[in-house]
Amino acid sequence: MKKVVLAYSGGLDSSVITAWLKETYGYEVIAVAVNVGQGEELDPLEEKARKSGVYKLYIEDLREEFITDYIYPTLKAGAVYEGKYLLGTSFARPLIAKKLVEIAEKEGAVAICHGATGKGNDQVRFELGIKALNPHIQIIAPWRIWNIKSREEALEYARVRGIEIAAVSKSYSMDRNIWHLSHEGSDLEDPWNEPQRELFLLGVAPEDAPDKPTYVEVGFEQGIPATVDGVQLSPYKLMETLNQLGGQNGVGIADIVENRLVGMKARGVYETPGGTILYAAHQALEHLTLDSITLHYKEQVALKYAEMVYNGVWFSPLRQALDAFVDVTQRNVTGTVRLKLYKGNCILAGSKSLYSLYDEEFATFGRDGVYNQKDAEGFINLFGLPLKVRALMEEKSGLRKK
Amino acid sequence: MKKVVLAYSGGLDSSVITAWLKETYGYEVIAVAVNVGQGEELDPLEEKARKSGVYKLYIEDLREEFITDYIYPTLKAGAVYEGKYLLGTSFARPLIAKKLVEIAEKEGAVAICHGATGKGNDQVRFELGIKALNPHIQIIAPWRIWNIKSREEALEYARVRGIEIAAVSKSYSMDRNIWHLSHEGSDLEDPWNEPQRELFLLGVAPEDAPDKPTYVEVGFEQGIPATVDGVQLSPYKLMETLNQLGGQNGVGIADIVENRLVGMKARGVYETPGGTILYAAHQALEHLTLDSITLHYKEQVALKYAEMVYNGVWFSPLRQALDAFVDVTQRNVTGTVRLKLYKGNCILAGSKSLYSLYDEEFATFGRDGVYNQKDAEGFINLFGLPLKVRALMEEKSGLRKK
Amino acid sequence: MKKVVLAYSGGLDSSVITAWLKETYGYEVIAVAVNVGQGEELDPLEEKARKSGVYKLYIEDLREEFITDYIYPTLKAGAVYEGKYLLGTSFARPLIAKKLVEIAEKEGAVAICHGATGKGNDQVRFELGIKALNPHIQIIAPWRIWNIKSREEALEYARVRGIEIAAVSKSYSMDRNIWHLSHEGSDLEDPWNEPQRELFLLGVAPEDAPDKPTYVEVGFEQGIPATVDGVQLSPYKLMETLNQLGGQNGVGIADIVENRLVGMKARGVYETPGGTILYAAHQALEHLTLDSITLHYKEQVALKYAEMVYNGVWFSPLRQALDAFVDVTQRNVTGTVRLKLYKGNCILAGSKSLYSLYDEEFATFGRDGVYNQKDAEGFINLFGLPLKVRALMEEKSGLRKK
Amino acid sequence: MKKVVLAYSGGLDSSVITAWLKETYGYEVIAVAVNVGQGEELDPLEEKARKSGVYKLYIEDLREEFITDYIYPTLKAGAVYEGKYLLGTSFARPLIAKKLVEIAEKEGAVAICHGATGKGNDQVRFELGIKALNPHIQIIAPWRIWNIKSREEALEYARVRGIEIAAVSKSYSMDRNIWHLSHEGSDLEDPWNEPQRELFLLGVAPEDAPDKPTYVEVGFEQGIPATVDGVQLSPYKLMETLNQLGGQNGVGIADIVENRLVGMKARGVYETPGGTILYAAHQALEHLTLDSITLHYKEQVALKYAEMVYNGVWFSPLRQALDAFVDVTQRNVTGTVRLKLYKGNCILAGSKSLYSLYDEEFATFGRDGVYNQKDAEGFINLFGLPLKVRALMEEKSGLRKK
Repeated sequence: MKKVVLAYSGGLDSSVITAWLKETYGYEVIAVAVNVGQGEELDPLEEKARKSGVYKLYIEDLREEFITDYIYPTLKAGAVYEGKYLLGTSFARPLIAKKLVEIAEKEGAVAICHGATGKGNDQVRFELGIKALNPHIQIIAPWRIWNIKSREEALEYARVRGIEIAAVSKSYSMDRNIWHLSHEGSDLEDPWNEPQRELFLLGVAPEDAPDKPTYVEVGFEQGIPATVDGVQLSPYKLMETLNQLGGQNGVGIADIVENRLVGMKARGVYETPGGTILYAAHQALEHLTLDSITLHYKEQVALKYAEMVYNGVWFSPLRQALDAFVDVTQRNVTGTVRLKLYKGNCILAGSKSLYSLYDEEFATFGRDGVYNQKDAEGFINLFGLPLKVRALMEEKSGLRKK
Repeated sequence: MKKVVLAYSGGLDSSVITAWLKETYGYEVIAVAVNVGQGEELDPLEEKARKSGVYKLYIEDLREEFITDYIYPTLKAGAVYEGKYLLGTSFARPLIAKKLVEIAEKEGAVAICHGATGKGNDQVRFELGIKALNPHIQIIAPWRIWNIKSREEALEYARVRGIEIAAVSKSYSMDRNIWHLSHEGSDLEDPWNEPQRELFLLGVAPEDAPDKPTYVEVGFEQGIPATVDGVQLSPYKLMETLNQLGGQNGVGIADIVENRLVGMKARGVYETPGGTILYAAHQALEHLTLDSITLHYKEQVALKYAEMVYNGVWFSPLRQALDAFVDVTQRNVTGTVRLKLYKGNCILAGSKSLYSLYDEEFATFGRDGVYNQKDAEGFINLFGLPLKVRALMEEKSGLRKK
Repeated sequence: MKKVVLAYSGGLDSSVITAWLKETYGYEVIAVAVNVGQGEELDPLEEKARKSGVYKLYIEDLREEFITDYIYPTLKAGAVYEGKYLLGTSFARPLIAKKLVEIAEKEGAVAICHGATGKGNDQVRFELGIKALNPHIQIIAPWRIWNIKSREEALEYARVRGIEIAAVSKSYSMDRNIWHLSHEGSDLEDPWNEPQRELFLLGVAPEDAPDKPTYVEVGFEQGIPATVDGVQLSPYKLMETLNQLGGQNGVGIADIVENRLVGMKARGVYETPGGTILYAAHQALEHLTLDSITLHYKEQVALKYAEMVYNGVWFSPLRQALDAFVDVTQRNVTGTVRLKLYKGNCILAGSKSLYSLYDEEFATFGRDGVYNQKDAEGFINLFGLPLKVRALMEEKSGLRKK
Repeated sequence: MKKVVLAYSGGLDSSVITAWLKETYGYEVIAVAVNVGQGEELDPLEEKARKSGVYKLYIEDLREEFITDYIYPTLKAGAVYEGKYLLGTSFARPLIAKKLVEIAEKEGAVAICHGATGKGNDQVRFELGIKALNPHIQIIAPWRIWNIKSREEALEYARVRGIEIAAVSKSYSMDRNIWHLSHEGSDLEDPWNEPQRELFLLGVAPEDAPDKPTYVEVGFEQGIPATVDGVQLSPYKLMETLNQLGGQNGVGIADIVENRLVGMKARGVYETPGGTILYAAHQALEHLTLDSITLHYKEQVALKYAEMVYNGVWFSPLRQALDAFVDVTQRNVTGTVRLKLYKGNCILAGSKSLYSLYDEEFATFGRDGVYNQKDAEGFINLFGLPLKVRALMEEKSGLRKK
């Protein structure tokens, strides 16, 4: 019997899709659940999978790889989508796709199936990853194929076939991993609605945070987070610690109407507590250690990087080339940043680096050997020469009167 | 007697420079004080000027022009320098330069003098403005010329000449206008020092803000702020209102080690309460009303725009051309944004526009006429085709095994 | 009976599509032939249309509009796709789409049909134009629908139905208008094959051009071509004149393997004789009249503009915004450029402008009032300060030894 | 006695500067002549140096390093300044600066002296290189210091001191190396003047080239030129061969009014025969082997790279980071390009690569497995969705009538 590898979550969709795959294609279903830090949901998968008629279940713990190979490059790039979104769902998809392809190849499967809808970005991210890594394998996206058009119809499909479904009442569509938790749908669909205070799961609303600030110091080595409050932590432990600190203080909530790749806008509310701390700290350290032209060019690269990650174009030469660019810029991004977390704020409260290009002596008033104020006149005269030449031309040509 | 036009603040520098100009060049000093919203400092200027030996004093109220012709174009562009600085000092300088040139031409002055130091950006901004508007006029920058090297030496210079100086004890170097207040120097010179709570003058520290959030609704017409809580306000009144609301709630404090144009880094702490509200609101409205490719390209333009404003390249064809670009993008940036101000946070709490490109029907799950999920397959297949072609090439060429 | 508007060329495709539309949908066919300068092909359309069973034929002469509203904006932008392609086919498509929509609305047609294949860019350009201008109208693209898969099958389809087809033996797929002629297919499909000398129709191969150079002077007003050899010409006449001069001298042949929007590469050979002259002349004039920062930023804008035109995203806010940017930059792009056309070369042989920012006095060796060589030291010291600061930091931090 | 290292050419300037340095500073002069392929000028340096009173002369052959470490990175980046200039002088300067610093450090010199004028770019390039590599060493730029203002005054200075100067009559200011030869000054100062046929030294004018084309095949390995007509050549030999072939056929002449970094425009005529062939070949190979998004982004990077090289910002983190970016893009830029050199033209006449992403099967008409024409509909529907959504919004909001 032919096999299909299914991206498996254990939810309603997974169960229904398993049944539908067998019914429609006659394939054996190899379920793959990838642990990218989504929390407690993974435990009862074995039983769920068995009940759903899954032939074989893989549970893969990729949390460290997710952080080091997907999150950190994006953090180092400073990539933010449309000024707000820290790409939490976006960069998890290519990693999952990679694992699906690996297992499909190992198992000799002919197809890979995912449960992403036909309206979202995730279908693109999954499928681009698969195409880049194995261009031959068949891709099955049930939501674009079958006639099930809603949660209710899916439940009905399961009921008719006797598939047991755990009772869940999800009002929002959510995606969670070690980096973030996203919320879509329900009352959020109207952008005029403010997110409700009860929405937040990784942390609290700013109003519910403690009245006293929490200070945290994050240390970086070449752009990569290494320590929290002076203690070296593994990537996973570091993320967990910062998520806790950030979440407790209401830090890292973003609310955005964003442009999906597939041509429409969508409204999302994101919780990224630890990630928000890391972005703020990393930026402050770059402000100390990057020179002007590097920083300014990197700001442009960050826009492109964000677009590529959002669009799922991860396994591509351009992303690799941008990574190579970023890595060179990070050589001296080593140092420590202190942040004050307070009722939703993540406030810079100090930064230092052995490689700081800021020097009090240069910037301040007094005499010094490096900077000669007399140089400024020549600088301004030549920097402003094009404006002066233009003004003279405009007089000479009659465009303006002398 | 020849005349020089002096950018006049009434402070120590102004008085000393007036004396020095007369002594050194034998010029009559025409003092020009430009009101860009710096607050109470303008009142006693008449007397100060008389005492300092100023020949003639102009006090020019340019607050509305400052907002409409300098602040709003920059806001519409979404320009932020190095991710944090809202350019409050930067765009005031060309406006002042313009007025200095106008009065110099009217008065037949041979020179313009400013009191900016030889280490900062402001000398560049003043002088570029002057060069662009009148390439013939002499520019005098005393701090790059004379031997006075400190505040103390300036006081001594004044004492010797019997110039009366009001006793001031400024610990920080500050610049204030209707848009912002900047702080530099003193303990801020070490980036590891957190700004002290007492520093803030336009508002309070987040911890000192009320325990209850304040909601505010800002209305825009074609990218330009028009109403606050539904009430049409003049530009000046609108800024004042938002500054008050923002300041009370601890909103709009930015702390940055930035790259000066003249080649060194400097640390600044900025208060921009109303401006921060306007940037947040404007961004949210663009998220509703701009399509993806316009928004993404405009993000790049914003980087360039910020760099130009920061560098003082205001009166230039490129800035005008970028403005023309921005203005077309703003045609539909009309609508209302609700923000929650709370202890330093400025949180999006709702946005709406008649011209919104977001449509619940498109983005959500159900059936609809505009978006056909089946289209996604074709889209992904072609969008991902280059990745697939590359994978096939790599197999064919032996770069990867089949 | 319902009506469909058909983009009509009178060729095999047009005839077969006419029959197929009537047979498949039962629609009356309104044929629209747009004259964008494709040459002699338009004359016998009346008879062909009648024979093909077309209900009504429109022949629209849009040559001037094509030049002024599509070609000139692109020329002013300096847009070149992938370094070589001057976009001749690309910008003709939106204009045709616009006319198709106009006639469809006037005629009350329910659908628009075009004969572009499912592998090319033109389908995208046509359909994006239609969607932007009328989102309700049905689009029919027969080549993506029917079972005809080749020229032979199309001929067979015609034969069976008694449709008379003029005998044509086209080895290459071509597209021609007043700006260019493109060649694809046949031996060109292998990029290792050099285009054959007989290929060229708008001009000759360089080897076949005269042994004596031809000089031509092109005058521009604000970036728009206005005169040839001092004589004011209408846009159409000007293009025709330059095409003739360029073609005779073997100028304007480009050979490129380009990236199509739909994900694959294709090889094209383009003849753009007059356009190549205009691009060279326009560039030279910009070199005289644009300052450095404007020119350099415009080079980036040109890349985006080219991508958008190539992709058919013409009727969009971003293109309009880029046009507004470009128009401001062109205010002083007025002057005259002399070119030497010689056996394939289009060599700059002189340029002048009343608004030239080049001034012999500034650039040359001697004494002058505008440029003071002593300023260079200060300029270099500050421009190079970041590099010096970095070097000092590297010593201080131990990254390099003193 | 203190020592100064002098960038030495053996020309009038070198001799006069040597005398002036000793007279003015009392320094011993260590002359350094760097061979970057400037041709025959190096032979009589020993004697000239001795006569000029040079204390010690270094002649350093850096031709291979120049090609591999300066020319090739720039070629791989595809960097062209202002659309025309291939940066021949620009990238030689940092290499010379590097050698000057090395020898200064070895010799314990306190200063480095160069003979570049105060109006040009070269002073910046030299001095930025020096500052980056050794921030402590004094820089002496005689042309910005002394009172000699012309060639005549320099000759007089030499005559008075009995310095023997070889009679030279240079009408143009020239700079030559293995990559190019530049011409400035004299009749070229008026951009309306066409360069005279006798100007060219590395090759002939197009009119003087043979009547028969020459074909040449250039092979690349990962973006680096490796073979000519199938024969592996050393970098120097390869450049020499292509210079000869290009020069004989009148290839590689560029005439441009360019923006100097120091704020004014200058007119230059450049001969870059071999370089022009390499750029054309490299571009063609990238068209085969780079995917669309990589190629398009690299076009933007090329603009920045060119600006940095032109401005002399070579030894900087940003240039290194851009190199890292470029190197990743070049992994598959391996293959062969055939060019036809004919009377000034350098015409693509074939390209092939094992890693070509172009595939006849995909691009052509017939059936194939990779590309499904039916996908195009979905692609266009989603790619065009934003335009459609906008059109619908405009109707709904009353901006356009239905």
